[in-house]
Amino acid sequence: MSHSRDTMVKSCPMNGGDDEYSYTKNSMFQKETISAAKEIIDKEIAQKLDVKNHLFASSSSSFRIADLGCSVGPNTFIAMENVIEAVKHKYQSQGLTSQIPEFQVFFNDQDSNDFNTLFRSLPPKRPYFAAGVPGSFHYQLFPTSSLHFIHASHALHWLSQVPNEVVDENSPAWNRGKIFYLSAPEEVGKAYAAQFAKDVGMFLDARATELVSGGMLVLIIGSFRNEISPSHTLASVLFDLLESTLLDMAKEGLISKARVDSFNLPMYLATPNEMTEIIEKNGRFKIERAEFFNPESAIKVFCSGQACTMHFRAGFEGILSKHFGSEIIDELFHRHSKKTEEFSSRLQSSSDEGTQLFLALKRK
Amino acid sequence: MSHSRDTMVKSCPMNGGDDEYSYTKNSMFQKETISAAKEIIDKEIAQKLDVKNHLFASSSSSFRIADLGCSVGPNTFIAMENVIEAVKHKYQSQGLTSQIPEFQVFFNDQDSNDFNTLFRSLPPKRPYFAAGVPGSFHYQLFPTSSLHFIHASHALHWLSQVPNEVVDENSPAWNRGKIFYLSAPEEVGKAYAAQFAKDVGMFLDARATELVSGGMLVLIIGSFRNEISPSHTLASVLFDLLESTLLDMAKEGLISKARVDSFNLPMYLATPNEMTEIIEKNGRFKIERAEFFNPESAIKVFCSGQACTMHFRAGFEGILSKHFGSEIIDELFHRHSKKTEEFSSRLQSSSDEGTQLFLALKRK
Repeated sequence: MSHSRDTMVKSCPMNGGDDEYSYTKNSMFQKETISAAKEIIDKEIAQKLDVKNHLFASSSSSFRIADLGCSVGPNTFIAMENVIEAVKHKYQSQGLTSQIPEFQVFFNDQDSNDFNTLFRSLPPKRPYFAAGVPGSFHYQLFPTSSLHFIHASHALHWLSQVPNEVVDENSPAWNRGKIFYLSAPEEVGKAYAAQFAKDVGMFLDARATELVSGGMLVLIIGSFRNEISPSHTLASVLFDLLESTLLDMAKEGLISKARVDSFNLPMYLATPNEMTEIIEKNGRFKIERAEFFNPESAIKVFCSGQACTMHFRAGFEGILSKHFGSEIIDELFHRHSKKTEEFSSRLQSSSDEGTQLFLALKRK
Repeated sequence: MSHSRDTMVKSCPMNGGDDEYSYTKNSMFQKETISAAKEIIDKEIAQKLDVKNHLFASSSSSFRIADLGCSVGPNTFIAMENVIEAVKHKYQSQGLTSQIPEFQVFFNDQDSNDFNTLFRSLPPKRPYFAAGVPGSFHYQLFPTSSLHFIHASHALHWLSQVPNEVVDENSPAWNRGKIFYLSAPEEVGKAYAAQFAKDVGMFLDARATELVSGGMLVLIIGSFRNEISPSHTLASVLFDLLESTLLDMAKEGLISKARVDSFNLPMYLATPNEMTEIIEKNGRFKIERAEFFNPESAIKVFCSGQACTMHFRAGFEGILSKHFGSEIIDELFHRHSKKTEEFSSRLQSSSDEGTQLFLALKRK
């Protein structure tokens, strides 16, 4: 197990702590999604989790759950309690109430995540033993066959790195003057897609190793319908807004144009078709369910200028500070907030599209 | 599992971060001890760990180790690698090389420990999967029968709280004008001893639940020989030095006398006889080895004024700040450092006594 590869990860954790700009205080979108996903997860666990399987029902062994890309709470605590409730119900419904196991929950995020805040805000009365696991989820993080359930919500869209071609001036995929691929030339999108396929392949290999046979992997990812062009998605509008703010600042000389050219977000939003293809190519999981769900209360976050700006700041301040310097952050988000008005009609018209893909996979 | 009890723990973690006064940079004493303990641990694992036991040799299961009271490294990383090396040798010596399991290491300390520093300083190439577990080790921290080896070095001497009687003005054990029990009246020592016995009883119950049958518990604790009077120990001299510094400051009005009266260190140093009695009363462990070891290089820390002061600051700044206010800390340790000269002959004459007790226990 070599972990030195972690140094190549280029993404940044969500804002730590619990102040005004923290992820803790600015993750309503993720919270609403988790709340909306509860019902689907309940149903999947009730129908598909085989707790009579000896790997689950062994009395000496606990039920081990991991939340990958957990950030700093409180969303991860809600998500984990939802899973535990659903698993308990499953045992009860099977007449196995006396065999309900102890639960151990592993909270994972990158080494640089604010685990101190996470640990200090753990619910005092919790129905599980808690542990934190630092490291990139593109690699194996747990011993072989040591987990029964893995959850990753709003996490898998983070790439392990920006694709090399996108920052290579000599490549046709050089993404000059743009910060993302959705409204960029096709070559850029292809480079991003290839990186995503590689990253998710590694992710699935690692999870297949960690999960017991019959174990479940639930993924909630940003996505859009197969038939929609990338540049017409809500996400495209949102990142155009951020890009436009950065370009304005470059024009006024507040940041250098070259820094904008070399900045790209290490994220990717896959369509259901793309996900299905990657999962089937990997071959170690059966897709139990794949469907869009689009909680209105979550999407509303992007229709209010201030909420949208706070959401983006909690999620991207880290990566933007690292590239442009922390001194530009206040000005950037001040401008971002004002610009949401300019973009409001585009935001409104995109907001009813499917943006959240729910996937339940089972380890073969 | 209720974890609300954690709020009653009165001790404080070691200094976090990695600056001048951090535990990371001021834990030579602990490091030398761990280094000296390596040989004994190697021998115990070689002789006593039954890796042919089905709970260890099961191919689907990893070997899980916990370090309780790990602080922020690097000592804990060295200790854990020592254990893993010894376990691997044991498998090899038994002709079980092909069955050497994967290792998972759980780093435990209080919720308020600096896990961010711990995680960011994990060795990049490590022969184990790492996890952090926040919480008081006086309670169960892990699922039943989920650990194979538990290590706790320089940790068990922390009490869950100062004994109530010691801060009760109406009790004969009120420890007025003193901060510890070693040179205090007998009633104070008795109150401390009772708290320690209760805490270690809870500790052993929790560990007995967490360990598989045949699992090992290695404890390294501050101690002194049965036949020595508490007030003649090296520890007594060291805490008299700190006490004397605080009393000087109270005399000069820099801190209030009442604050010194109400301050007591939640720590206890048990003799081998006391430990044996508590372990036998608990009844769930067999004592495989109990012996003093007294690494000269470790004890030397206390013979150099500056090193002694830095050691105390890294360990006690947290608890002293909480009680007296952080504004007095620089002055306190400046005076402490000067006072080591005054105490040097007492320190020198005490330094050759047994101070570190090594205990290897096996879960029945």
